[in-house]
Amino acid sequence: MFRAEIKVMLKKGVLDPQGGAVERSLHALEYDNVSQVRVGKYMELTLDAADREAAKQQVREMCERLLANPVIEDYTFDLVEV
Amino acid sequence: MFRAEIKVMLKKGVLDPQGGAVERSLHALEYDNVSQVRVGKYMELTLDAADREAAKQQVREMCERLLANPVIEDYTFDLVEV
Repeated sequence: MFRAEIKVMLKKGVLDPQGGAVERSLHALEYDNVSQVRVGKYMELTLDAADREAAKQQVREMCERLLANPVIEDYTFDLVEV
Repeated sequence: MFRAEIKVMLKKGVLDPQGGAVERSLHALEYDNVSQVRVGKYMELTLDAADREAAKQQVREMCERLLANPVIEDYTFDLVEV
Protein backbone atom coordinates (compact mmCIF):
# COMPACT_ATOMS: atom_id res chain seq x y z
CA MET A 1 0.00 0.00 0.00
CA PHE A 2 1.25 3.44 -0.90
CA ARG A 3 0.16 6.91 0.10
CA ALA A 4 0.48 9.34 -2.80
CA GLU A 5 0.85 13.08 -2.15
CA ILE A 6 0.08 14.95 -5.34
CA LYS A 7 0.59 18.66 -6.10
CA VAL A 8 -1.09 20.20 -9.13
CA MET A 9 -0.07 23.72 -10.15
CA LEU A 10 -0.81 25.91 -13.14
CA LYS A 11 2.13 25.89 -15.55
CA LYS A 12 4.52 28.83 -15.43
CA GLY A 13 3.14 31.55 -17.67
CA VAL A 14 -0.51 30.54 -17.21
CA LEU A 15 -2.42 33.36 -15.52
CA ASP A 16 -3.33 32.46 -11.92
CA PRO A 17 -6.22 34.73 -10.90
CA GLN A 18 -6.70 32.90 -7.59
CA GLY A 19 -3.05 33.49 -6.72
CA GLY A 20 -3.47 37.15 -7.64
CA ALA A 21 -6.52 37.46 -5.39
CA VAL A 22 -4.70 35.86 -2.45
CA GLU A 23 -1.72 38.16 -3.02
CA ARG A 24 -3.93 41.27 -3.01
CA SER A 25 -5.66 40.07 0.17
CA LEU A 26 -2.28 39.56 1.87
CA HIS A 27 -1.22 43.08 0.85
CA ALA A 28 -4.52 44.43 2.19
CA LEU A 29 -3.60 42.80 5.52
CA GLU A 30 -0.28 44.69 5.29
CA TYR A 31 1.90 41.72 4.41
CA ASP A 32 3.61 43.85 1.77
CA ASN A 33 6.74 41.69 1.68
CA VAL A 34 4.87 38.84 -0.05
CA SER A 35 4.99 38.28 -3.82
CA GLN A 36 4.64 35.61 -6.52
CA VAL A 37 1.68 33.86 -4.90
CA ARG A 38 0.53 30.78 -6.81
CA VAL A 39 -2.41 28.62 -5.77
CA GLY A 40 -2.78 24.96 -6.70
CA LYS A 41 -4.35 21.74 -5.55
CA TYR A 42 -3.02 19.16 -3.16
CA MET A 43 -4.36 15.63 -3.03
CA GLU A 44 -3.60 12.58 -0.95
CA LEU A 45 -4.78 9.08 -1.73
CA THR A 46 -4.07 5.49 -0.76
CA LEU A 47 -3.18 3.04 -3.49
CA ASP A 48 -2.98 -0.73 -3.33
CA ALA A 49 -0.21 -1.54 -5.81
CA ALA A 50 2.23 -4.42 -6.23
CA ASP A 51 5.34 -2.26 -6.03
CA ARG A 52 6.58 1.32 -6.15
CA GLU A 53 7.04 1.29 -9.93
CA ALA A 54 3.44 0.15 -10.53
CA ALA A 55 2.16 2.77 -8.06
CA LYS A 56 4.18 5.51 -9.74
CA GLN A 57 2.88 4.57 -13.16
CA GLN A 58 -0.74 4.48 -11.99
CA VAL A 59 -0.52 7.86 -10.23
CA ARG A 60 0.99 9.37 -13.39
CA GLU A 61 -1.87 7.93 -15.45
CA MET A 62 -4.55 9.17 -13.01
CA CYS A 63 -2.99 12.65 -13.09
CA GLU A 64 -2.99 12.71 -16.90
CA ARG A 65 -6.57 11.42 -17.17
CA LEU A 66 -8.37 13.10 -14.27
CA LEU A 67 -6.47 14.83 -11.50
CA ALA A 68 -4.65 17.44 -13.59
CA ASN A 69 -5.27 19.16 -16.89
CA PRO A 70 -1.98 18.54 -18.67
CA VAL A 71 -2.62 21.39 -21.11
CA ILE A 72 -2.37 24.07 -18.44
CA GLU A 73 -1.21 22.27 -15.27
CA ASP A 74 1.94 20.53 -14.05
CA TYR A 75 1.87 17.85 -11.39
CA THR A 76 4.40 16.33 -9.06
CA PHE A 77 3.95 13.60 -6.50
CA ASP A 78 5.63 11.68 -3.72
CA LEU A 79 4.91 8.08 -2.78
CA VAL A 80 5.23 6.84 0.77
CA GLU A 81 4.92 3.13 1.53
CA VAL A 82 2.34 2.59 4.31
CA MET B 1 14.14 35.82 0.60
CA PHE B 2 12.23 32.64 1.30
CA ARG B 3 9.90 30.55 -0.81
CA ALA B 4 7.07 29.11 1.32
CA GLU B 5 5.24 25.95 0.21
CA ILE B 6 2.00 25.68 2.13
CA LYS B 7 -0.43 22.76 2.27
CA VAL B 8 -3.92 23.27 3.66
CA MET B 9 -6.08 20.19 4.33
CA LEU B 10 -9.40 19.63 6.03
CA LYS B 11 -8.87 18.27 9.54
CA LYS B 12 -9.27 14.54 10.05
CA GLY B 13 -12.94 13.83 10.67
CA VAL B 14 -14.20 16.81 8.68
CA LEU B 15 -16.28 15.57 5.73
CA ASP B 16 -14.41 16.09 2.44
CA PRO B 17 -17.03 16.03 -0.34
CA GLN B 18 -14.49 17.04 -2.98
CA GLY B 19 -12.28 14.11 -2.00
CA GLY B 20 -15.32 11.83 -2.18
CA ALA B 21 -16.17 13.09 -5.67
CA VAL B 22 -12.60 12.52 -6.90
CA GLU B 23 -12.61 9.02 -5.39
CA ARG B 24 -15.87 8.12 -7.14
CA SER B 25 -14.51 9.46 -10.43
CA LEU B 26 -11.36 7.36 -10.06
CA HIS B 27 -13.48 4.28 -9.37
CA ALA B 28 -15.60 5.09 -12.45
CA LEU B 29 -12.35 5.04 -14.46
CA GLU B 30 -11.73 1.57 -12.97
CA TYR B 31 -9.00 2.59 -10.54
CA ASP B 32 -10.68 0.44 -7.89
CA ASN B 33 -7.52 0.09 -5.80
CA VAL B 34 -7.67 3.75 -4.71
CA SER B 35 -9.14 4.86 -1.38
CA GLN B 36 -9.02 7.61 1.25
CA VAL B 37 -8.82 10.45 -1.24
CA ARG B 38 -8.49 13.88 0.39
CA VAL B 39 -8.33 17.15 -1.51
CA GLY B 40 -6.70 20.29 -0.18
CA LYS B 41 -5.00 23.46 -1.30
CA TYR B 42 -1.39 24.07 -2.13
CA MET B 43 0.12 27.54 -2.18
CA GLU B 44 3.55 28.92 -2.95
CA LEU B 45 4.69 32.44 -2.18
CA THR B 46 7.87 34.46 -1.91
CA LEU B 47 8.58 36.27 1.33
CA ASP B 48 11.17 38.94 2.04
CA ALA B 49 12.06 38.27 5.69
CA ALA B 50 15.12 38.97 7.85
CA ASP B 51 15.68 35.34 8.79
CA ARG B 52 14.07 31.91 8.80
CA GLU B 53 12.47 32.40 12.22
CA ALA B 54 10.78 35.65 11.14
CA ALA B 55 9.60 34.01 7.90
CA LYS B 56 8.19 31.02 9.78
CA GLN B 57 6.30 33.23 12.20
CA GLN B 58 4.82 35.35 9.41
CA VAL B 59 3.69 32.34 7.36
CA ARG B 60 2.04 30.89 10.46
CA GLU B 61 0.24 34.19 11.05
CA MET B 62 -0.91 34.48 7.41
CA CYS B 63 -2.25 30.92 7.56
CA GLU B 64 -4.20 31.63 10.74
CA ARG B 65 -5.61 34.91 9.43
CA LEU B 66 -6.28 34.23 5.75
CA LEU B 67 -4.86 31.16 4.03
CA ALA B 68 -6.51 28.48 6.17
CA ASN B 69 -9.64 28.26 8.28
CA PRO B 70 -8.20 26.99 11.58
CA VAL B 71 -11.63 25.76 12.73
CA ILE B 72 -11.82 23.05 10.07
CA GLU B 73 -8.40 23.03 8.36
CA ASP B 74 -4.84 22.10 9.26
CA TYR B 75 -1.85 23.61 7.52
CA THR B 76 1.79 22.65 7.16
CA PHE B 77 4.54 24.48 5.32
CA ASP B 78 8.15 24.28 4.21
CA LEU B 79 10.49 27.23 3.79
CA VAL B 80 13.26 27.24 1.20
CA GLU B 81 15.81 30.05 1.15
CA VAL B 82 16.04 31.52 -2.38
